[in-house]
Amino acid sequence: MMRVFTYPEQSKWAELAKRPSEGIGAKEDAVKAILQAVRKQRDKALIDLTLKFDKVKIKNLKLDANTIKKAEKSISPALKKAIDKAYKNIYKFHSTQLNTKIEKVETTPGVVCWRKTVHLEKVGLYIPGGSAPLFSTVLMLGIPAKIAGCKEVILCSPPNIDAAILYAASKCGIKKIFCVGGAQAIAAMAYGTKSIPKVDKIFGPGNSFVTIAKQLVTQEGVAIDMPAGPSEVLVIADDSANAAFVASDLLSQAEHGPDSQVILLSTSKKLVDEVITEVNAQLKALPRKAIAEKALKNSRAIILKSLDEAMNFSNLYAPEHLILACKNAEKLGEKVINAGSVFLGNYSPESAGDYASGTNHTLPTNGYARAYSGVSVDSLIKKITFQQISKDGLKNIGNTVEIMAEAEQLQAHKNAITIRLKTIKK
Amino acid sequence: MMRVFTYPEQSKWAELAKRPSEGIGAKEDAVKAILQAVRKQRDKALIDLTLKFDKVKIKNLKLDANTIKKAEKSISPALKKAIDKAYKNIYKFHSTQLNTKIEKVETTPGVVCWRKTVHLEKVGLYIPGGSAPLFSTVLMLGIPAKIAGCKEVILCSPPNIDAAILYAASKCGIKKIFCVGGAQAIAAMAYGTKSIPKVDKIFGPGNSFVTIAKQLVTQEGVAIDMPAGPSEVLVIADDSANAAFVASDLLSQAEHGPDSQVILLSTSKKLVDEVITEVNAQLKALPRKAIAEKALKNSRAIILKSLDEAMNFSNLYAPEHLILACKNAEKLGEKVINAGSVFLGNYSPESAGDYASGTNHTLPTNGYARAYSGVSVDSLIKKITFQQISKDGLKNIGNTVEIMAEAEQLQAHKNAITIRLKTIKK
Repeated sequence: MMRVFTYPEQSKWAELAKRPSEGIGAKEDAVKAILQAVRKQRDKALIDLTLKFDKVKIKNLKLDANTIKKAEKSISPALKKAIDKAYKNIYKFHSTQLNTKIEKVETTPGVVCWRKTVHLEKVGLYIPGGSAPLFSTVLMLGIPAKIAGCKEVILCSPPNIDAAILYAASKCGIKKIFCVGGAQAIAAMAYGTKSIPKVDKIFGPGNSFVTIAKQLVTQEGVAIDMPAGPSEVLVIADDSANAAFVASDLLSQAEHGPDSQVILLSTSKKLVDEVITEVNAQLKALPRKAIAEKALKNSRAIILKSLDEAMNFSNLYAPEHLILACKNAEKLGEKVINAGSVFLGNYSPESAGDYASGTNHTLPTNGYARAYSGVSVDSLIKKITFQQISKDGLKNIGNTVEIMAEAEQLQAHKNAITIRLKTIKK
Repeated sequence: MMRVFTYPEQSKWAELAKRPSEGIGAKEDAVKAILQAVRKQRDKALIDLTLKFDKVKIKNLKLDANTIKKAEKSISPALKKAIDKAYKNIYKFHSTQLNTKIEKVETTPGVVCWRKTVHLEKVGLYIPGGSAPLFSTVLMLGIPAKIAGCKEVILCSPPNIDAAILYAASKCGIKKIFCVGGAQAIAAMAYGTKSIPKVDKIFGPGNSFVTIAKQLVTQEGVAIDMPAGPSEVLVIADDSANAAFVASDLLSQAEHGPDSQVILLSTSKKLVDEVITEVNAQLKALPRKAIAEKALKNSRAIILKSLDEAMNFSNLYAPEHLILACKNAEKLGEKVINAGSVFLGNYSPESAGDYASGTNHTLPTNGYARAYSGVSVDSLIKKITFQQISKDGLKNIGNTVEIMAEAEQLQAHKNAITIRLKTIKK
C-alpha cells in the first residue's frame, strides 16, 4: 500500500518526487519495424498488422457512414444524454479559447507586424481500444479541433469500435473513422496510405507502442500533442478535507493503470491515517482492484509542516492533476506554478474534469507540466507572423539590419537591405 | 544553380516540395555517448568535452560577471546602437503577446472553469559558436523569456563567447552564462550539473549534434522549442517584383548553409530569367559564395499559371519564410495557411525580420509550419486549467460523470462522485 513519509527533509524531496520509471528500450525496435512496414506496404501492412495484433480480418479500413449513423441508436438514452451534456460543457469552455483577433503593431514608423491565428489543416485522433471505450477522449480532442476549424479530422481506433466512440465522434463532426490501432495507426496517420490521409498533428493516448510510435514520427515531420506518460494525481489535504472523498480521488487515479502514481500531501497525520483506512475499505469493491493496488505501491503519503511547504513540493513534482482539498483552496491555488489541471475544494473531484466539467483531460504527465499545457484550442492552431514594411519603414530600420548582418558575417542579408535602400534614396 | 520548372503538373508538386534530406543516423550514437558522459560525470565531462571539441581548456564553466560587464565596452557604438534598436522593436512586438487575463467560465451552474497563464520557471538558451556570433538569436529568445517573466534564464555557448552575445544577453537580463557548446551543452541543461542548472525547456539553433541532442532529451522530461531543420525561404513574385530584390532575398537565405533551400514561384517567366541573372551577378561578391552555391543546388524556380496556384504550392510546402513580392500582397497573404513568417511587398525583405522589424526569427522549418508556430511569448508560458465546483454544481453534473465513468468501466471514477453526492443529498 501507500508508503507514508513524515516531515522528510528538503534534500529528500527530489527522490520522493520521482516517477516510476519505464523501460521502453526493448519495444523501440518492434515499433520501428511496424513503422517501416507501414511506410513500405501502406494499407496492406495495416490489414496484416490488424489481423496479427487485433485478431480481426478487416476488409475496409474506413468505417462506412451507415455504421456510424447506426451507433447513435445502439447506445442507451442515458449515456447519450450524458455525452450530450459533457459535450455542451466542454464546448462552452473551449469556445472561449479561440482568439482570432489580429493586433497590428507598428514597432517603428512604417514597420507593421502582426500575428494571425490559423487552424491546423489535418489532424488525426488516436483512441485506444482495450477493455473500455474511451469516448470521453474523443470529446476532449474532437471538440477543440471543431472549434479551431480544422479542415480534416480523422480518427483511428482498433476494431471493433464501440458505438459510444462513434457517437462522440459524430457529435464532433468527425466523418473519417478508420479501424486500425497501435503503432500501425500512428504510422498510417504520419505517412498516409491509400485509405488513410497523412495528417499534420497526431493526438491521443495509447499503450507504450503507441507512445513510442508517436515520439518516433515527430522526427519525420509530424507534430504530436505532447509526450505521454502514466497518469498521476497529487492531492493536498488539510484537516478540513473529507478522508473518504480524498480516498476516492486517489483510487480513481490508481485504477487507471499499474504504473499510475498518486501522491497525498497533508499537514495532518490524522487525515493521512483516515485516508489510508478509507482507501483500503473502498478498494475492496473495485472491479479494477488489482490494478489500483499495483499503482498504490508507486504511491506516497507525505506529511509536511504547512500548506505552503506542500505547494512547494507539488510545484517540484509538477502533477498532471492537482486537487486542493483544503481551506482557502482558491488562495492556495494562486501559488500553483507547475500542474496540468487544478481542482479546488472538496466538491471538485478529478473525475468531474475527466468527463464533464468542461476542462480538458488530455494533460501533461511525468513532470512535463513544467513546460507543457494540456490540450486546448491552442493545440489545434498556429500563429503565423506577418510584416509589412513601407519604404519609409525600411529607411528607419535598414541601417540597423545592415550593421547587425555585417557583424554576424551574413553579407547577403545585408545586401538585401542595401540594394533596396539604394533605390529609395535615389 | 537553381533548376527551373515550367507549369509542372499538380501530381509533381509533392516531389517539387521535398526538402533535401539529411542522414543523421550515424551521428546519433555519438550524441548518445555525449549525453551519457554528461549524465555520469557532469561538470568534469563538460570540461573534457570542451577541450576535445572546442580545443579550449576551461576552468570555470560559468562566465564571471565582470567579463559580461566589460562586453558592453568592447563592441562598437554603432553595433551597440543597432542591437538597442532591434531590442526595442522585438520587445514592442512581443510584449503584445502576453495575455494573463483570467476568464472564468461557468459551464453549468456551480461549475466554474478557467485557465491561468504561468511563465516557465527555468529555461535554457543555446547559442551556437562557429564562424559568426549569433547575438540576434539571443534577442529572439531572451526577449520573450523576459516578457513572460521566466525566473531563471541561462545561456550556453561555446568558448570564447563573443562580446555582442554577452551584450545582447545583458539587455535581456540574462546573468547566468556558461561557456559550453554542442550536444554537451544540451545535456548539461537537460540533466543539470554542479555548475549548470537543469532547465524545463531548451531553446536555440545548432548543428546536427545539437539538434539530435535536443530531440533525444525530449524523451527525458525536458521540452524544446521546436524540431530543427535547415533554413528555407519561398518567394512568390509576379511581374511587379524587382528581380534584384528577389535575388538578394534568395541569396540571403542560401548563404545560411549548404543545406538551406530557396524556392521561387512566379507567374512570369521573364522575372524568373531576370532573377537568375541577378542571382549569378550578386553571388560573385559574397564572402559565403561557396555555401550559397551549394544551397542553390537544392533550390527551384517554378513558373505557375496564377498567384493562387503559387499560394497553393506554398501552402503545400509550408515554408519557414514566405515573401510575397507581388501586387496586392496583403490580399494574397490572407490565403496563407502554412508558413512560419510572411513578408509582404517589395520592401519587406526576410533579413528585416531576421534582425530588427520585431517579429521572431526562430521559426518552424522542414514543413513543421503546418503544425508549429515560431517562438513567441507563448513558447515561454503554459496555461493551467482550474475548476471549482460547488455542491450544487456537483449535483448538476454528477450523474453525467457517473454514467460516463460507468460506461468506460472506471468504477472508482464514478465512486468519487457518488460518495460526494450522498453527503449532499442527505
